[in-house]
Amino acid sequence: MRVPVELKKSWRLFNHGPVTLVSAAADGAANVMAAAWVTPLDFDPPKLTVVLAADAYTRELAVRAGTLVLQVPTVSMLSIVEGVGTTSGRDVDKWSRFAIEREDEPSAPAPLVRGCVGWMVARLLDEPHLAEAYDLFVVEGIAAWADDRVYRDGRLRDDVPPELRTVHHVAGGVYVVDGEIVKAR
Amino acid sequence: MRVPVELKKSWRLFNHGPVTLVSAAADGAANVMAAAWVTPLDFDPPKLTVVLAADAYTRELAVRAGTLVLQVPTVSMLSIVEGVGTTSGRDVDKWSRFAIEREDEPSAPAPLVRGCVGWMVARLLDEPHLAEAYDLFVVEGIAAWADDRVYRDGRLRDDVPPELRTVHHVAGGVYVVDGEIVKAR
Repeated sequence: MRVPVELKKSWRLFNHGPVTLVSAAADGAANVMAAAWVTPLDFDPPKLTVVLAADAYTRELAVRAGTLVLQVPTVSMLSIVEGVGTTSGRDVDKWSRFAIEREDEPSAPAPLVRGCVGWMVARLLDEPHLAEAYDLFVVEGIAAWADDRVYRDGRLRDDVPPELRTVHHVAGGVYVVDGEIVKAR
Repeated sequence: MRVPVELKKSWRLFNHGPVTLVSAAADGAANVMAAAWVTPLDFDPPKLTVVLAADAYTRELAVRAGTLVLQVPTVSMLSIVEGVGTTSGRDVDKWSRFAIEREDEPSAPAPLVRGCVGWMVARLLDEPHLAEAYDLFVVEGIAAWADDRVYRDGRLRDDVPPELRTVHHVAGGVYVVDGEIVKAR
């Protein structure tokens, strides 16, 4: 079940470095892309860095709206991850092409992708140099939710069902799935 | 065996989001810390973003030297990862405290931690605003190596022995180990 995550704990959704889906909407249009380079930057308020290629339609929508949604897909969604990561919303309607369903969340400024297990609504901070020089964006979380089968208090559980595990991009359509949870202390 | 990695493929060492160890040396002193927030930013030349806390001694040494070493530890090294991540080199000699061995690599500007499976020497780009506002550094790789049991052409292999698998930080000393490799295409 999708449950709210306390904002100051929401950076944890992304702390283990999973691949993400980024959605954004502006002026009646909405798009979604894959982004592997999404990383926490601060805890409270939560900030993350997000790399969005210069020609990405989702980036254009996010900049126009000033907001985006970061979300964590599962190994069961690999065809969607690859699909939205290798096509452009300027050419195809990714939502219908890849049969992507949306969560019903009226407060979100862009669609939440159903089947994901963590979601964060974030606003773009004003860092034009970073966008221009590096395609890098600094965003601040303003709301977050998680599937309580995968995260507890924003923290990855140690009993995640195999089909709900998150994935990390190795290169070129190859991913590594989360394995065992271990404790150093 | 530690083998060189072609520079334009070296971003791959870090692409799946593993926790890293960062070492730096200046004026005869060397230190090492853990950093979970290390992410590729560009391919060729390879650039990465690195978050280093304001009071970190390794950060001070890296800024003085203008260089650092990023490296990927394994699940077998969790006590070192936690140890260097929860102590300060201003208080203790981490190298002796945690019995950290070094690779023999004369070309590197700081020690390479033995037992790691990927290493990148990088120089700090001049972005003082990022360091001050976010503790964020942009670095550019200038040399890289990998353990050929774990990476091939910089890319995570699909037959990594369990004891050499890389780990991702969940939160508070809990890590998730790399599991199965899957292909979306």
